[in-house]
Amino acid sequence: MSTATLTIDLTALSANWRALNRLSEAETGAVVKADAYGLGIDKAGPALAGAGARQFFVAVAEEGLALRRALGEGPRISVFSGHMPGDADLIRGSNLTPLINSVDQMLLHVETLPGHPFGVQLDSGMNRLGMEPAEWSALRDIALAQRPTLLMSHLACADEPNHPMNAQQLNRFNEMTGGIDVPRSLAATGGILLGAEYHFDLTRPGVGLYGGLPFVDATPVVTLDVPVIQTRNVEAGESVGYGNAFVAECMTRVATVAAGYADGLIRAMGAQACFTHLGQKLPVIGRVSMDLITVDVSALPEVPEALELIGQHQSVDTVAGYAGTIGYEILTSLGARYDRVYLT
Amino acid sequence: MSTATLTIDLTALSANWRALNRLSEAETGAVVKADAYGLGIDKAGPALAGAGARQFFVAVAEEGLALRRALGEGPRISVFSGHMPGDADLIRGSNLTPLINSVDQMLLHVETLPGHPFGVQLDSGMNRLGMEPAEWSALRDIALAQRPTLLMSHLACADEPNHPMNAQQLNRFNEMTGGIDVPRSLAATGGILLGAEYHFDLTRPGVGLYGGLPFVDATPVVTLDVPVIQTRNVEAGESVGYGNAFVAECMTRVATVAAGYADGLIRAMGAQACFTHLGQKLPVIGRVSMDLITVDVSALPEVPEALELIGQHQSVDTVAGYAGTIGYEILTSLGARYDRVYLT
Repeated sequence: MSTATLTIDLTALSANWRALNRLSEAETGAVVKADAYGLGIDKAGPALAGAGARQFFVAVAEEGLALRRALGEGPRISVFSGHMPGDADLIRGSNLTPLINSVDQMLLHVETLPGHPFGVQLDSGMNRLGMEPAEWSALRDIALAQRPTLLMSHLACADEPNHPMNAQQLNRFNEMTGGIDVPRSLAATGGILLGAEYHFDLTRPGVGLYGGLPFVDATPVVTLDVPVIQTRNVEAGESVGYGNAFVAECMTRVATVAAGYADGLIRAMGAQACFTHLGQKLPVIGRVSMDLITVDVSALPEVPEALELIGQHQSVDTVAGYAGTIGYEILTSLGARYDRVYLT
Repeated sequence: MSTATLTIDLTALSANWRALNRLSEAETGAVVKADAYGLGIDKAGPALAGAGARQFFVAVAEEGLALRRALGEGPRISVFSGHMPGDADLIRGSNLTPLINSVDQMLLHVETLPGHPFGVQLDSGMNRLGMEPAEWSALRDIALAQRPTLLMSHLACADEPNHPMNAQQLNRFNEMTGGIDVPRSLAATGGILLGAEYHFDLTRPGVGLYGGLPFVDATPVVTLDVPVIQTRNVEAGESVGYGNAFVAECMTRVATVAAGYADGLIRAMGAQACFTHLGQKLPVIGRVSMDLITVDVSALPEVPEALELIGQHQSVDTVAGYAGTIGYEILTSLGARYDRVYLT
């Protein structure tokens, strides 16, 4: 076996949902888009339902189909991209709830699926998805007459608690939805941590469930162990890897491990990154290649069968920092070649 | 449908194999590791076999199993990671040829699969995989007595034709293999372009098959069209996306398209990137988010149903440049949510 092992702790996932649920003044949903942030919607969905989640969110209707198969009837599955041309059969067949983003989507929905449940996504200032205030004003009476399931919006700067944009979006959302007797939702993980005034009727945690920042108290969910294929001594002056990117200054013990950027280990992390073994940090040397990474294991008395990249000694956010990105991207980039082991 | 469409032109793939075959003085194989550089080993493998390839290379034994199912018996499938503990059943069951990297792997192979074909990977200076000269000297007579299928090594700097490392590795490879009556292989795509002395008996093109540099004459294989979910006008002073990363200087028409870093559109490309429509470049604005990207479409008289990221107007290498990486990483990061269409 030269494929790496990705261990996904579903009990930690459930524990994170319960911890965020305790922090939430409202009902707590679960965002499982992008294949549950790369961890497997067919496993994560049922685990979160088991923990108590009854409202799920996906990015596109096709993900809703996969989730419905995993969950069965019962939980509500809402779709952030709304109702796109060609989606009607999927929405009806899997009983999905599109979050309508525009007048065009509203018209498409009532024409193709009259009476089918829908929510409304409002733009409170991020300018990415959802109806603008003027659009909403024009459509609001017609939409409300059909009793939408939810009025929701999304925060642009929730990971920065002191950013003035948070209060601006809160005010805008209150202006757009105040006095309407329909459940409301504004907060994802970051919004939950901003406090109760952001919680409304339903929160939608995503990254925090999977062990990522900004939920600093998250239980780690992912462990990634990468097998060592081969170990060699590299003498001073010898180079390692593509472009001779590393040149040894002294005799260095080099392990070649069996994963690379084709497995989502982002090439940009390069020689800033470390693997670990029993807490010992082991620097990556040279470039990350497609299927292989070279690691300085000189500090180890004996080279083990595998080195750890993500786990109790290094979070997804630490690894993200090596690549100059965020934990979300590390999670959603985890590749298809891993041997995936689910702990239940 | 809010999933993007990834169109993979298998006739272009075949044309690239034939073009590299014409440049090659030797037999021409095909590297299909990492799921055929992200394009689908079950489709790319048979297409390349149809073009004439009879020797295939994968990174790990599990990929060999998938390829054998696609190809049937006949073509040789060699495994770069060699023979790892636990691989014997896969190697025997799928008739794979491990490329032995070390004395340890050699011992494992002869103990678990005596008489089963193998090749030998030699380290000619990259210090990543393969036997060192001293190791090879010690093992060579024993290995040759069992008639390996191939002696191979890999170039570290073949993408830079003038790098002195190329000649150094060529000399080292000749020293390690000269006078041995076993087929030899040194060149991948870059090595083919270095000239006939690098070709030996078998070349192993990879990235060039899939339309990537350094094969400048490659036919593009991939087109990526991303649907527009919604379009809005953003007034001067308004911000777009996470962290308010973009602030409009004048009224800007913004399209939100349905793909993001969870689909392998590397977050680092950010606002350096462009989409295109009929050759018109359309700048990304704000941050790439998980499932969505915002694009300035002010230049278009009418917003189409989808914008193109990769295709005839922008190669995988152009897109790679936006993210400060290489075309290889763009290809192997292409995600699982796309609607994949194969042209044959």
